[in-house]
Amino acid sequence: MNIENRLKEFGLELPEISTPGGSYVSVNIRVNIAYVAIQFPIRNGEYFYQGRLGDDISTEDGLKAMELCALNVLAQINDKVGFDNVVGLNHLDAYFQAYGSWDDSPEVVNGASDLFQKVLEEKGIHTRAIFGVEKLPRNFSVGLTSSFTIVKSVQI
Amino acid sequence: MNIENRLKEFGLELPEISTPGGSYVSVNIRVNIAYVAIQFPIRNGEYFYQGRLGDDISTEDGLKAMELCALNVLAQINDKVGFDNVVGLNHLDAYFQAYGSWDDSPEVVNGASDLFQKVLEEKGIHTRAIFGVEKLPRNFSVGLTSSFTIVKSVQI
Amino acid sequence: MNIENRLKEFGLELPEISTPGGSYVSVNIRVNIAYVAIQFPIRNGEYFYQGRLGDDISTEDGLKAMELCALNVLAQINDKVGFDNVVGLNHLDAYFQAYGSWDDSPEVVNGASDLFQKVLEEKGIHTRAIFGVEKLPRNFSVGLTSSFTIVKSVQI
Repeated sequence: MNIENRLKEFGLELPEISTPGGSYVSVNIRVNIAYVAIQFPIRNGEYFYQGRLGDDISTEDGLKAMELCALNVLAQINDKVGFDNVVGLNHLDAYFQAYGSWDDSPEVVNGASDLFQKVLEEKGIHTRAIFGVEKLPRNFSVGLTSSFTIVKSVQI
Repeated sequence: MNIENRLKEFGLELPEISTPGGSYVSVNIRVNIAYVAIQFPIRNGEYFYQGRLGDDISTEDGLKAMELCALNVLAQINDKVGFDNVVGLNHLDAYFQAYGSWDDSPEVVNGASDLFQKVLEEKGIHTRAIFGVEKLPRNFSVGLTSSFTIVKSVQI
Repeated sequence: MNIENRLKEFGLELPEISTPGGSYVSVNIRVNIAYVAIQFPIRNGEYFYQGRLGDDISTEDGLKAMELCALNVLAQINDKVGFDNVVGLNHLDAYFQAYGSWDDSPEVVNGASDLFQKVLEEKGIHTRAIFGVEKLPRNFSVGLTSSFTIVKSVQI
Protein backbone atom coordinates (compact mmCIF):
# COMPACT_ATOMS: atom_id res chain seq x y z
CA MET A 1 0.00 0.00 0.00
CA ASN A 2 1.33 3.44 -0.87
CA ILE A 3 0.36 5.31 2.23
CA GLU A 4 1.28 8.74 0.89
CA ASN A 5 -1.07 8.35 -2.08
CA ARG A 6 -3.82 7.06 0.17
CA LEU A 7 -3.42 9.99 2.53
CA LYS A 8 -3.52 12.44 -0.40
CA GLU A 9 -6.96 11.08 -1.33
CA PHE A 10 -8.13 12.39 2.02
CA GLY A 11 -6.21 15.65 1.81
CA LEU A 12 -3.73 14.48 4.43
CA GLU A 13 0.05 14.56 4.50
CA LEU A 14 2.50 12.73 6.74
CA PRO A 15 4.49 15.05 9.00
CA GLU A 16 8.24 14.69 9.34
CA ILE A 17 8.99 11.99 11.90
CA SER A 18 9.63 13.60 15.25
CA THR A 19 12.63 12.64 17.34
CA PRO A 20 12.14 11.19 20.83
CA GLY A 21 12.19 13.74 23.67
CA GLY A 22 14.29 11.47 25.90
CA SER A 23 16.25 8.23 26.15
CA TYR A 24 13.85 6.03 24.22
CA VAL A 25 12.98 5.12 20.65
CA SER A 26 9.88 6.09 18.68
CA VAL A 27 9.21 2.54 17.48
CA ASN A 28 10.37 -0.62 19.23
CA ILE A 29 9.98 -3.89 17.33
CA ARG A 30 9.84 -7.04 19.45
CA VAL A 31 9.11 -10.17 17.41
CA ASN A 32 5.73 -9.40 15.82
CA ILE A 33 4.67 -6.28 17.73
CA ALA A 34 5.76 -2.72 16.98
CA TYR A 35 5.34 -0.51 20.04
CA VAL A 36 5.00 3.19 19.21
CA ALA A 37 5.98 5.83 21.77
CA ILE A 38 3.44 8.49 22.75
CA GLN A 39 2.90 10.91 19.87
CA PHE A 40 1.83 14.52 20.24
CA PRO A 41 0.33 17.15 17.92
CA ILE A 42 3.66 18.16 16.40
CA ARG A 43 4.13 18.98 12.72
CA ASN A 44 7.62 19.29 11.31
CA GLY A 45 9.07 20.23 14.68
CA GLU A 46 6.41 22.80 15.57
CA TYR A 47 4.14 22.26 18.57
CA PHE A 48 0.37 22.70 18.11
CA TYR A 49 -2.74 22.54 20.30
CA GLN A 50 -1.09 23.23 23.63
CA GLY A 51 -3.45 23.91 26.53
CA ARG A 52 -6.59 22.34 27.95
CA LEU A 53 -9.69 21.21 26.09
CA GLY A 54 -12.94 22.88 26.99
CA ASP A 55 -11.37 26.31 27.19
CA ASP A 56 -8.01 26.93 25.44
CA ILE A 57 -8.78 24.29 22.80
CA SER A 58 -12.20 23.67 21.26
CA THR A 59 -13.61 20.19 20.66
CA GLU A 60 -13.18 20.73 16.92
CA ASP A 61 -9.52 21.67 17.37
CA GLY A 62 -9.06 18.76 19.77
CA LEU A 63 -10.22 16.44 17.00
CA LYS A 64 -7.63 17.99 14.66
CA ALA A 65 -5.00 17.60 17.38
CA MET A 66 -5.80 13.89 17.62
CA GLU A 67 -5.66 13.57 13.84
CA LEU A 68 -2.18 15.06 13.96
CA CYS A 69 -1.13 12.58 16.66
CA ALA A 70 -2.40 9.76 14.43
CA LEU A 71 -0.51 11.15 11.43
CA ASN A 72 2.65 11.12 13.54
CA VAL A 73 1.99 7.48 14.41
CA LEU A 74 1.59 6.67 10.72
CA ALA A 75 4.77 8.58 9.87
CA GLN A 76 6.71 6.55 12.43
CA ILE A 77 5.29 3.24 11.18
CA ASN A 78 5.96 4.23 7.57
CA ASP A 79 9.57 5.04 8.44
CA LYS A 80 10.42 2.15 10.75
CA VAL A 81 8.13 -0.73 9.73
CA GLY A 82 6.58 -0.03 6.34
CA PHE A 83 2.86 -0.45 5.82
CA ASP A 84 3.25 -3.64 3.79
CA ASN A 85 4.56 -5.25 6.97
CA VAL A 86 1.61 -4.19 9.12
CA VAL A 87 -0.89 -6.87 10.12
CA GLY A 88 -2.99 -4.35 12.02
CA LEU A 89 -3.30 -1.67 14.66
CA ASN A 90 -3.85 -3.16 18.14
CA HIS A 91 -4.98 -0.59 20.68
CA LEU A 92 -4.87 3.16 21.35
CA ASP A 93 -4.36 4.86 24.69
CA ALA A 94 -5.60 8.41 24.21
CA TYR A 95 -4.90 11.06 26.85
CA PHE A 96 -6.22 14.57 27.12
CA GLN A 97 -5.96 17.66 29.32
CA ALA A 98 -9.29 19.36 29.97
CA TYR A 99 -11.13 21.79 32.21
CA GLY A 100 -14.13 21.22 34.42
CA SER A 101 -17.14 19.55 32.93
CA TRP A 102 -15.96 19.29 29.32
CA ASP A 103 -16.93 15.80 28.15
CA ASP A 104 -16.39 15.52 24.40
CA SER A 105 -13.35 13.25 24.62
CA PRO A 106 -14.91 10.39 22.60
CA GLU A 107 -15.59 12.82 19.74
CA VAL A 108 -12.04 14.21 19.95
CA VAL A 109 -10.44 10.76 19.93
CA ASN A 110 -12.52 9.81 16.90
CA GLY A 111 -10.14 12.17 15.09
CA ALA A 112 -7.49 9.47 15.47
CA SER A 113 -9.79 6.45 15.29
CA ASP A 114 -11.46 7.54 12.06
CA LEU A 115 -8.17 8.47 10.42
CA PHE A 116 -6.61 5.06 11.11
CA GLN A 117 -9.60 3.29 9.61
CA LYS A 118 -9.88 5.57 6.60
CA VAL A 119 -6.22 5.10 5.75
CA LEU A 120 -5.56 1.51 6.82
CA GLU A 121 -9.10 0.18 6.35
CA GLU A 122 -9.56 -3.16 8.18
CA LYS A 123 -5.93 -3.01 9.36
CA GLY A 124 -6.84 0.20 11.19
CA ILE A 125 -9.52 -1.39 13.38
CA HIS A 126 -8.57 -1.08 17.06
CA THR A 127 -9.68 -0.91 20.66
CA ARG A 128 -9.04 2.17 22.73
CA ALA A 129 -9.00 3.70 26.19
CA ILE A 130 -9.49 7.43 26.86
CA PHE A 131 -8.80 9.32 30.03
CA GLY A 132 -8.21 12.87 31.12
CA VAL A 133 -4.84 13.36 32.76
CA GLU A 134 -3.65 16.22 34.89
CA LYS A 135 -0.66 17.06 32.78
CA LEU A 136 0.92 16.05 29.50
CA PRO A 137 4.53 16.98 28.69
CA ARG A 138 4.89 20.43 27.08
CA ASN A 139 1.28 21.22 27.93
CA PHE A 140 0.00 19.33 24.88
CA SER A 141 -3.80 19.03 24.96
CA VAL A 142 -3.70 15.42 23.72
CA GLY A 143 -1.33 12.47 23.34
CA LEU A 144 -1.64 9.04 21.74
CA THR A 145 0.12 5.73 22.47
CA SER A 146 -0.32 2.75 20.16
CA SER A 147 1.01 -0.62 19.08
CA PHE A 148 0.74 -2.62 15.87
CA THR A 149 0.96 -6.28 15.06
CA ILE A 150 3.43 -6.74 12.22
CA VAL A 151 4.91 -9.61 10.22
CA LYS A 152 7.80 -11.26 12.02
CA SER A 153 10.59 -10.61 9.55
CA VAL A 154 10.96 -6.88 10.07
CA GLN A 155 14.39 -5.84 11.34
CA ILE A 156 15.47 -2.39 12.42
CA MET B 1 -16.10 -23.68 30.56
CA ASN B 2 -19.68 -22.48 30.85
CA ILE B 3 -19.05 -19.00 32.12
CA GLU B 4 -22.70 -18.22 32.85
CA ASN B 5 -23.01 -21.22 35.17
CA ARG B 6 -19.77 -20.35 36.88
CA LEU B 7 -20.91 -16.76 37.42
CA LYS B 8 -24.22 -17.97 38.84
CA GLU B 9 -22.32 -19.89 41.53
CA PHE B 10 -21.07 -16.51 42.73
CA GLY B 11 -24.42 -14.77 42.32
CA LEU B 12 -23.17 -12.86 39.29
CA GLU B 13 -24.70 -12.29 35.89
CA LEU B 14 -23.15 -11.07 32.66
CA PRO B 15 -24.52 -7.71 31.53
CA GLU B 16 -25.55 -7.13 27.93
CA ILE B 17 -22.49 -6.29 25.88
CA SER B 18 -22.21 -2.54 25.53
CA THR B 19 -21.60 -0.91 22.18
CA PRO B 20 -18.50 1.23 21.64
CA GLY B 21 -18.97 4.97 22.28
CA GLY B 22 -16.93 5.91 19.21
CA SER B 23 -15.15 4.69 16.08
CA TYR B 24 -13.54 1.63 17.61
CA VAL B 25 -14.37 -1.97 18.44
CA SER B 26 -14.87 -3.52 21.88
CA VAL B 27 -12.56 -6.45 21.19
CA ASN B 28 -9.73 -6.49 18.65
CA ILE B 29 -8.11 -9.84 17.93
CA ARG B 30 -4.58 -9.71 16.52
CA VAL B 31 -2.99 -13.15 16.16
CA ASN B 32 -3.05 -14.50 19.74
CA ILE B 33 -3.96 -11.39 21.73
CA ALA B 34 -7.48 -10.04 22.26
CA TYR B 35 -7.37 -6.35 23.18
CA VAL B 36 -10.45 -5.17 25.08
CA ALA B 37 -11.49 -1.52 24.95
CA ILE B 38 -11.97 0.38 28.21
CA GLN B 39 -15.07 -0.85 30.03
CA PHE B 40 -17.17 1.21 32.40
CA PRO B 41 -19.76 0.43 35.10
CA ILE B 42 -22.66 0.07 32.68
CA ARG B 43 -25.39 -2.54 33.01
CA ASN B 44 -27.76 -3.14 30.13
CA GLY B 45 -27.28 0.37 28.81
CA GLU B 46 -27.68 2.13 32.13
CA TYR B 47 -24.80 4.10 33.65
CA PHE B 48 -23.85 3.48 37.30
CA TYR B 49 -21.33 4.87 39.79
CA GLN B 50 -20.79 8.26 38.18
CA GLY B 51 -18.84 10.78 40.26
CA ARG B 52 -15.65 10.76 42.30
CA LEU B 53 -14.51 8.23 44.87
CA GLY B 54 -13.99 9.47 48.39
CA ASP B 55 -17.11 11.59 48.34
CA ASP B 56 -19.84 10.85 45.74
CA ILE B 57 -18.93 7.17 45.68
CA SER B 58 -17.87 5.12 48.71
CA THR B 59 -15.01 2.62 48.67
CA GLU B 60 -17.54 -0.20 48.93
CA ASP B 61 -19.48 1.10 45.93
CA GLY B 62 -16.22 1.67 44.06
CA LEU B 63 -15.46 -2.01 44.50
CA LYS B 64 -18.88 -2.87 43.06
CA ALA B 65 -18.23 -0.46 40.19
CA MET B 66 -14.98 -2.27 39.39
CA GLU B 67 -16.77 -5.63 39.57
CA LEU B 68 -19.24 -4.32 37.01
CA CYS B 69 -16.39 -3.20 34.73
CA ALA B 70 -14.91 -6.70 35.02
CA LEU B 71 -18.27 -8.29 34.21
CA ASN B 72 -18.43 -6.13 31.09
CA VAL B 73 -14.96 -7.37 30.10
CA LEU B 74 -16.13 -10.97 30.58
CA ALA B 75 -19.29 -10.29 28.57
CA GLN B 76 -17.20 -8.94 25.69
CA ILE B 77 -14.79 -11.90 25.77
CA ASN B 78 -17.69 -14.35 26.00
CA ASP B 79 -19.30 -12.77 22.95
CA LYS B 80 -16.26 -12.21 20.74
CA VAL B 81 -13.70 -14.85 21.77
CA GLY B 82 -15.38 -17.54 23.87
CA PHE B 83 -13.84 -18.65 27.13
CA ASP B 84 -12.66 -21.97 25.73
CA ASN B 85 -10.31 -19.96 23.52
CA VAL B 86 -8.80 -17.95 26.37
CA VAL B 87 -5.25 -18.81 27.44
CA GLY B 88 -5.31 -16.15 30.13
CA LEU B 89 -5.83 -12.57 31.18
CA ASN B 90 -2.68 -10.47 30.67
CA HIS B 91 -2.83 -7.11 32.43
CA LEU B 92 -5.35 -4.60 33.77
CA ASP B 93 -5.08 -0.82 33.60
CA ALA B 94 -7.51 0.47 36.22
CA TYR B 95 -8.41 4.17 36.34
CA PHE B 96 -10.38 6.06 38.93
CA GLN B 97 -11.66 9.56 39.68
CA ALA B 98 -11.26 10.60 43.31
CA TYR B 99 -11.18 13.53 45.71
CA GLY B 100 -8.38 14.72 47.96
CA SER B 101 -6.70 12.22 50.18
CA TRP B 102 -8.87 9.18 49.42
CA ASP B 103 -6.45 6.26 49.01
CA ASP B 104 -8.42 3.01 48.85
CA SER B 105 -7.82 2.38 45.15
CA PRO B 106 -6.09 -1.01 45.65
CA GLU B 107 -9.14 -2.24 47.59
CA VAL B 108 -11.50 -0.91 44.91
CA VAL B 109 -9.57 -2.51 42.07
CA ASN B 110 -9.59 -5.83 43.93
CA GLY B 111 -13.27 -5.84 42.93
CA ALA B 112 -12.11 -6.59 39.39
CA SER B 113 -9.00 -8.61 40.28
CA ASP B 114 -10.83 -10.97 42.61
CA LEU B 115 -13.71 -11.48 40.20
CA PHE B 116 -11.42 -12.47 37.32
CA GLN B 117 -9.66 -15.02 39.49
CA LYS B 118 -12.84 -16.41 41.01
CA VAL B 119 -14.39 -16.94 37.62
CA LEU B 120 -11.39 -17.82 35.44
CA GLU B 121 -9.20 -19.34 38.17
CA GLU B 122 -5.56 -19.58 37.02
CA LYS B 123 -6.52 -18.07 33.66
CA GLY B 124 -7.63 -14.96 35.55
CA ILE B 125 -4.20 -14.26 37.07
CA HIS B 126 -2.90 -10.87 35.91
CA THR B 127 -0.70 -7.87 36.56
CA ARG B 128 -2.20 -4.44 36.98
CA ALA B 129 -1.57 -0.72 37.17
CA ILE B 130 -3.82 1.72 39.03
CA PHE B 131 -3.88 5.47 38.81
CA GLY B 132 -6.21 8.31 39.58
CA VAL B 133 -7.07 10.37 36.52
CA GLU B 134 -8.60 13.80 36.35
CA LYS B 135 -11.53 12.81 34.21
CA LEU B 136 -13.13 9.71 32.75
CA PRO B 137 -15.70 9.96 29.96
CA ARG B 138 -19.28 10.44 31.22
CA ASN B 139 -17.96 11.14 34.71
CA PHE B 140 -17.63 7.42 35.47
CA SER B 141 -15.84 6.86 38.77
CA VAL B 142 -13.80 3.95 37.38
CA GLY B 143 -12.75 2.37 34.09
CA LEU B 144 -10.87 -0.81 33.16
CA THR B 145 -8.71 -1.70 30.15
CA SER B 146 -7.49 -5.26 29.62
CA SER B 147 -6.06 -7.75 27.18
CA PHE B 148 -6.12 -11.53 26.99
CA THR B 149 -3.87 -14.11 25.40
CA ILE B 150 -6.00 -16.44 23.31
CA VAL B 151 -5.48 -19.44 21.05
CA LYS B 152 -4.46 -18.43 17.56
CA SER B 153 -7.34 -19.85 15.58
CA VAL B 154 -10.04 -17.42 16.69
CA GLN B 155 -11.52 -15.39 13.84
CA ILE B 156 -14.00 -12.55 14.09
CA MET C 1 24.17 -12.12 31.97
CA ASN C 2 24.85 -11.67 35.67
CA ILE C 3 22.64 -8.73 36.38
CA GLU C 4 23.91 -8.17 39.92
CA ASN C 5 27.50 -7.81 38.71
CA ARG C 6 26.44 -5.51 35.94
CA LEU C 7 24.47 -3.32 38.35
CA LYS C 8 27.46 -3.15 40.69
CA GLU C 9 29.55 -1.64 37.88
CA PHE C 10 27.12 1.27 37.97
CA GLY C 11 26.96 1.42 41.76
CA LEU C 12 23.42 0.02 41.76
CA GLU C 13 21.84 -2.75 43.78
CA LEU C 14 18.60 -4.66 43.25
CA PRO C 15 16.04 -4.03 45.98
CA GLU C 16 14.16 -6.91 47.59
CA ILE C 17 11.22 -7.83 45.40
CA SER C 18 8.10 -6.13 46.69
CA THR C 19 4.89 -8.04 47.20
CA PRO C 20 1.74 -7.01 45.31
CA GLY C 21 -0.54 -4.58 47.16
CA GLY C 22 -3.68 -6.44 46.07
CA SER C 23 -5.11 -9.51 44.32
CA TYR C 24 -2.65 -9.60 41.44
CA VAL C 25 0.82 -10.88 40.64
CA SER C 26 3.98 -8.83 40.08
CA VAL C 27 4.90 -10.66 36.87
CA ASN C 28 2.47 -12.48 34.60
CA ILE C 29 3.95 -14.64 31.85
CA ARG C 30 1.70 -15.32 28.88
CA VAL C 31 3.46 -17.23 26.09
CA ASN C 32 6.37 -14.91 25.18
CA ILE C 33 5.43 -11.72 27.02
CA ALA C 34 6.12 -11.00 30.69
CA TYR C 35 3.78 -8.30 31.98
CA VAL C 36 5.12 -6.45 35.02
CA ALA C 37 2.71 -4.77 37.46
CA ILE C 38 3.17 -1.10 38.26
CA GLN C 39 6.30 -0.58 40.37
CA PHE C 40 6.84 2.24 42.84
CA PRO C 41 9.88 3.80 44.54
CA ILE C 42 10.04 1.20 47.31
CA ARG C 43 13.29 -0.21 48.69
CA ASN C 44 13.19 -3.26 50.93
CA GLY C 45 9.66 -2.49 52.09
CA GLU C 46 10.24 1.20 52.76
CA TYR C 47 8.37 3.86 50.77
CA PHE C 48 10.37 6.73 49.23
CA TYR C 49 9.61 9.86 47.21
CA GLN C 50 6.01 10.34 48.28
CA GLY C 51 4.41 13.64 47.29
CA ARG C 52 4.21 15.75 44.15
CA LEU C 53 6.99 16.75 41.79
CA GLY C 54 7.69 20.44 41.40
CA ASP C 55 7.30 21.11 45.10
CA ASP C 56 7.61 18.20 47.58
CA ILE C 57 9.98 16.33 45.27
CA SER C 58 12.67 17.97 43.12
CA THR C 59 13.37 16.99 39.53
CA GLU C 60 16.66 15.44 40.64
CA ASP C 61 14.89 13.34 43.28
CA GLY C 62 12.19 12.45 40.78
CA LEU C 63 14.87 11.00 38.54
CA LYS C 64 16.15 8.91 41.47
CA ALA C 65 12.58 7.82 42.21
CA MET C 66 12.22 6.60 38.62
CA GLU C 67 15.55 4.78 38.86
CA LEU C 68 14.23 3.00 41.93
CA CYS C 69 11.05 2.01 40.07
CA ALA C 70 13.25 0.61 37.28
CA LEU C 71 15.37 -1.32 39.78
CA ASN C 72 12.19 -2.86 41.16
CA VAL C 73 11.20 -3.90 37.64
CA LEU C 74 14.63 -5.51 37.18
CA ALA C 75 14.34 -7.25 40.56
CA GLN C 76 10.98 -8.74 39.54
CA ILE C 77 12.29 -9.89 36.16
CA ASN C 78 15.41 -11.33 37.77
CA ASP C 79 13.27 -13.28 40.22
CA LYS C 80 10.47 -14.49 37.95
CA VAL C 81 11.97 -14.68 34.46
CA GLY C 82 15.77 -14.52 34.64
CA PHE C 83 17.68 -12.15 32.41
CA ASP C 84 18.98 -14.91 30.15
CA ASN C 85 15.36 -15.44 29.10
CA VAL C 86 14.74 -11.80 28.20
CA VAL C 87 14.52 -10.91 24.52
CA GLY C 88 13.94 -7.26 25.33
CA LEU C 89 12.00 -4.58 27.12
CA ASN C 90 8.89 -3.52 25.17
CA HIS C 91 7.34 -0.31 26.45
CA LEU C 92 7.15 1.82 29.60
CA ASP C 93 4.11 3.67 30.90
CA ALA C 94 5.49 6.26 33.32
CA TYR C 95 3.14 8.18 35.62
CA PHE C 96 3.86 11.10 37.86
CA GLN C 97 2.13 13.39 40.35
CA ALA C 98 3.08 17.06 39.99
CA TYR C 99 2.07 20.60 40.82
CA GLY C 100 1.22 23.47 38.50
CA SER C 101 3.58 24.25 35.69
CA TRP C 102 6.35 21.76 36.53
CA ASP C 103 7.37 20.21 33.20
CA ASP C 104 10.52 18.15 33.68
CA SER C 105 8.83 14.77 33.32
CA PRO C 106 10.95 13.65 30.34
CA GLU C 107 14.11 14.27 32.37
CA VAL C 108 12.67 12.41 35.36
CA VAL C 109 11.61 9.39 33.29
CA ASN C 110 15.08 9.25 31.75
CA GLY C 111 16.06 7.96 35.20
CA ALA C 112 14.31 4.71 34.27
CA SER C 113 15.04 4.79 30.52
CA ASP C 114 18.77 5.31 30.95
CA LEU C 115 19.04 2.65 33.65
CA PHE C 116 17.37 -0.02 31.50
CA GLN C 117 19.71 0.71 28.61
CA LYS C 118 22.84 0.89 30.75
CA VAL C 119 22.09 -2.45 32.36
CA LEU C 120 20.40 -4.39 29.54
CA GLU C 121 22.10 -2.61 26.62
CA GLU C 122 20.22 -3.26 23.35
CA LYS C 123 17.70 -5.43 25.23
CA GLY C 124 16.80 -2.33 27.26
CA ILE C 125 15.69 -0.27 24.27
CA HIS C 126 12.01 0.67 24.59
CA THR C 127 9.22 3.05 23.73
CA ARG C 128 7.45 5.00 26.43
CA ALA C 129 4.49 7.17 27.34
CA ILE C 130 4.54 9.74 30.15
CA PHE C 131 1.61 11.50 31.74
CA GLY C 132 0.82 13.35 34.92
CA VAL C 133 -1.97 11.72 36.89
CA GLU C 134 -4.02 13.17 39.69
CA LYS C 135 -3.22 10.49 42.21
CA LEU C 136 -1.01 7.45 42.56
CA PRO C 137 -1.62 4.90 45.33
CA ARG C 138 0.12 5.78 48.63
CA ASN C 139 0.90 9.24 47.30
CA PHE C 140 3.95 7.99 45.40
CA SER C 141 5.38 10.72 43.15
CA VAL C 142 6.02 8.27 40.30
CA GLY C 143 5.07 4.81 39.08
CA LEU C 144 6.21 2.61 36.21
CA THR C 145 4.44 -0.14 34.25
CA SER C 146 6.35 -2.29 31.77
CA SER C 147 6.38 -5.48 29.74
CA PHE C 148 9.15 -7.61 28.29
CA THR C 149 9.36 -10.01 25.40
CA ILE C 150 10.88 -13.26 26.64
CA VAL C 151 11.74 -16.67 25.22
CA LYS C 152 8.76 -18.98 25.11
CA SER C 153 9.94 -21.73 27.39
CA VAL C 154 9.76 -19.84 30.69
CA GLN C 155 7.35 -21.35 33.20
CA ILE C 156 6.35 -19.95 36.54
